[in-house]
Amino acid sequence: MTPAYSPGLEGVIAGETSVSSVDESLRYRGYAIEDLAEHCSYEEVAYLLLYGELPNAKRLADFTARVNAARRLTQPLRDLLKSLPKWTHPLDALRSSVSVLSHFDQDVSDNSTDANLRKAERLIAQLPVAIADYFRYCKGLQPVAASQELNNAANFLYMIRGEKPTPEDTKAFDVSLILYADHEFNASTFTARTIVSTQSDLHSGVVGAIGALKGPLHGGANEKVVGVLDEIGSPANAEKWVMDALARKERIMGFGHRVCKKGDVRAGICKKYASQAAARAGTTHYEVTADIVERLMAEQKKMFPNVDWPAGRLYHALGLEIPIYTPIFAAARVAGWSAHVIEQMENNRLIRPRGLYKGPADRVVPPIAERA
Amino acid sequence: MTPAYSPGLEGVIAGETSVSSVDESLRYRGYAIEDLAEHCSYEEVAYLLLYGELPNAKRLADFTARVNAARRLTQPLRDLLKSLPKWTHPLDALRSSVSVLSHFDQDVSDNSTDANLRKAERLIAQLPVAIADYFRYCKGLQPVAASQELNNAANFLYMIRGEKPTPEDTKAFDVSLILYADHEFNASTFTARTIVSTQSDLHSGVVGAIGALKGPLHGGANEKVVGVLDEIGSPANAEKWVMDALARKERIMGFGHRVCKKGDVRAGICKKYASQAAARAGTTHYEVTADIVERLMAEQKKMFPNVDWPAGRLYHALGLEIPIYTPIFAAARVAGWSAHVIEQMENNRLIRPRGLYKGPADRVVPPIAERA
Ligand SMILES: CC(C)(COP(=O)(O)OP(=O)(O)OC[C@H]1O[C@@H](n2cnc3c(N)ncnc32)[C@H](O)[C@@H]1OP(=O)(O)O)[C@@H](O)C(=O)NCCC(=O)NCCS
Ligand SMILES: CC(C)(COP(=O)(O)OP(=O)(O)OC[C@H]1O[C@@H](n2cnc3c(N)ncnc32)[C@H](O)[C@@H]1OP(=O)(O)O)[C@@H](O)C(=O)NCCC(=O)NCCS
Repeated sequence: MTPAYSPGLEGVIAGETSVSSVDESLRYRGYAIEDLAEHCSYEEVAYLLLYGELPNAKRLADFTARVNAARRLTQPLRDLLKSLPKWTHPLDALRSSVSVLSHFDQDVSDNSTDANLRKAERLIAQLPVAIADYFRYCKGLQPVAASQELNNAANFLYMIRGEKPTPEDTKAFDVSLILYADHEFNASTFTARTIVSTQSDLHSGVVGAIGALKGPLHGGANEKVVGVLDEIGSPANAEKWVMDALARKERIMGFGHRVCKKGDVRAGICKKYASQAAARAGTTHYEVTADIVERLMAEQKKMFPNVDWPAGRLYHALGLEIPIYTPIFAAARVAGWSAHVIEQMENNRLIRPRGLYKGPADRVVPPIAERA
Repeated sequence: MTPAYSPGLEGVIAGETSVSSVDESLRYRGYAIEDLAEHCSYEEVAYLLLYGELPNAKRLADFTARVNAARRLTQPLRDLLKSLPKWTHPLDALRSSVSVLSHFDQDVSDNSTDANLRKAERLIAQLPVAIADYFRYCKGLQPVAASQELNNAANFLYMIRGEKPTPEDTKAFDVSLILYADHEFNASTFTARTIVSTQSDLHSGVVGAIGALKGPLHGGANEKVVGVLDEIGSPANAEKWVMDALARKERIMGFGHRVCKKGDVRAGICKKYASQAAARAGTTHYEVTADIVERLMAEQKKMFPNVDWPAGRLYHALGLEIPIYTPIFAAARVAGWSAHVIEQMENNRLIRPRGLYKGPADRVVPPIAERA
């Protein structure tokens, strides 16, 4: 008899966590995501994920100062980024960046919680710089140094665009980072936890997580959204396009979720900012088309948008280029990844499941001359 | 009520595989590991893992030619390796190397099985070069170019040591690579499968797997073995040392296994080669001490050596330096990782389990001035 198993580990509990919970709502350490998105900055949320509590003004200022002080790359990494073939996807470059940054991190071989918190804070600072610098190298532009006066979201946009963003753009971008900061045992976070369950190290966990985030079934989906809308072309074509895609049994990127089968609370929050940003940018037709796709997916498939559906549109309305959407997701999620790594290492057991063997029966090695 | 779960996913089936099976024995695609270790080279076994069948003479010659042609690094990677701080662990450097190699791989964004096989063959060629070159840079030595006349095991030793190895050393090293080439859903392989389950790519999977292999509960154990034996010092001290360590509830590296609770068949195979190599090297006292530790662990804890226990001693007797033991493991396991990545991508479902929430109950964001 074949033992039963759940493909893709659907519904299987892989460990305990106090970082976040996903059910009807999404909560980070007990706080509803709507509440955090409305009242907090990404810095406060990152602090909450890492330290377990929201910071008071003093703690927030200290945290921000430490993060700001770490917003730079080492020269060997800059040299490497400049030498990459121009077709290198920014997410691949980010994976290499984090791996290389680890070599220059003074805490690289210290797995204590204190050291892990320091490393996590540095990664929160460094990822936006690595993304922005590589983006600008590819365009033949000089990197823009971070400004000590801007918050994390504004700095990120500033380093990419080279201009200080408006308060509206900053708030919208900040909210997207908050929404992306954690999501329980998603594939990339679970990857990070599995990696450090061998008592490896935080950077190894984050490097692996970036690799997992890349795929279009996970973070890579936010880079596909604008392509879907461009392919549809105009609102008038939306119904035919969706029905044809579904008839061909295609997956429409930005819809569906392993856990949130009845809808993703983050999508509703992000949509508000996406449509405001589209109005400012004069790209409201994307929003109109998106609404028709949403309605049809609900009617035809009882399937609802996930956070990537509005996030892709928001980043487009903010004038950002598509290949940096998943890297931005990574720069936000690194807070969650780090919190999970720390939690895993504090109460560890090796993550090592079994495979169900379906291959050839026992056989004997034939001499090479007798092989087909 | 709290849902039940199995910590560390012990005994949980995470997917189907035809690559290998682990029970009383270990089999790669149906062939017993004893049979493969006695009659095959690493090249034949790598081919078997990737293509599902042992190669005939023609296929083996073609495979070997393709691998030999790919035994070189790109200049930006050489420059990076030269610029790393001298304390960088060779396994961390290898993780960065594979990440950087992906940028220069012409198939980087092709996820077809054909492209994945090409990428896997190149990684099998490149990992030994990356390990050997970094090792030599750290010593201030020039890299040694691979020789087209040597097989994989001999080339590997040659590039590290700068001298062609004896047939005895080559065979022992080759067997260790065969033993390390695959082991079902171990933590690093499972990491690679989880990463590509998002439809990411083979290099991302291998980069994550290297990070997982690093930990001392997994591949990192082989770097601890000689330290244990050195700490014990002499056979006369072994009993006291083991009893004290067990009394302190310490884990003795190289013993125990999540799946092979009654013993690891690979350990017995490797032990033979380790003790022959120790006799040649004049380090038989390590073997004598190791035997006493083995006997005590069996008597006291019903715990048996895993493959790392003799492999660490074998590499020591071959004159290799400890920090490259886990990188060598990675260079062997990359065949298995790649085979699992290909299998996962050919019949994919996103790997996304659940976490069991144990954190704070629902709460409301307080204004910053009111926070503790
Ligand atoms: C997120 C996702 C991977 C969840 O996957 P999952 O839990 O493994 O989903 P399932 O495989 O159970 O899907 C059930 C069915 O719905 C279909 N389906 C899932 N997502 C779909 C989508 N976005 N569009 C159309 N059909 C979809 C599947 O093809 C499957 O159909 P079948 O039963 O006829 O084979 C999946 O919904 C998806 O691929 N979405 C698009 C990518 C995306 O937006 N990812 C970001 C997630 S935050
Ligand atoms: C391989 C390993 C991680 C398997 O772990 P696991 O299945 O999670 O093992 P468990 O946690 O169930 O261990 C059961 C008990 O044996 C003990 N134990 C496990 N390995 C031990 C070892 N090598 N030496 C001493 N005690 C050990 C555990 O501490 C535990 O004791 P407890 O019940 O008092 O807490 C574990 O045996 C280990 O850490 N070995 C040393 C590292 C090593 O050699 N790794 C290479 C594996 S190929």
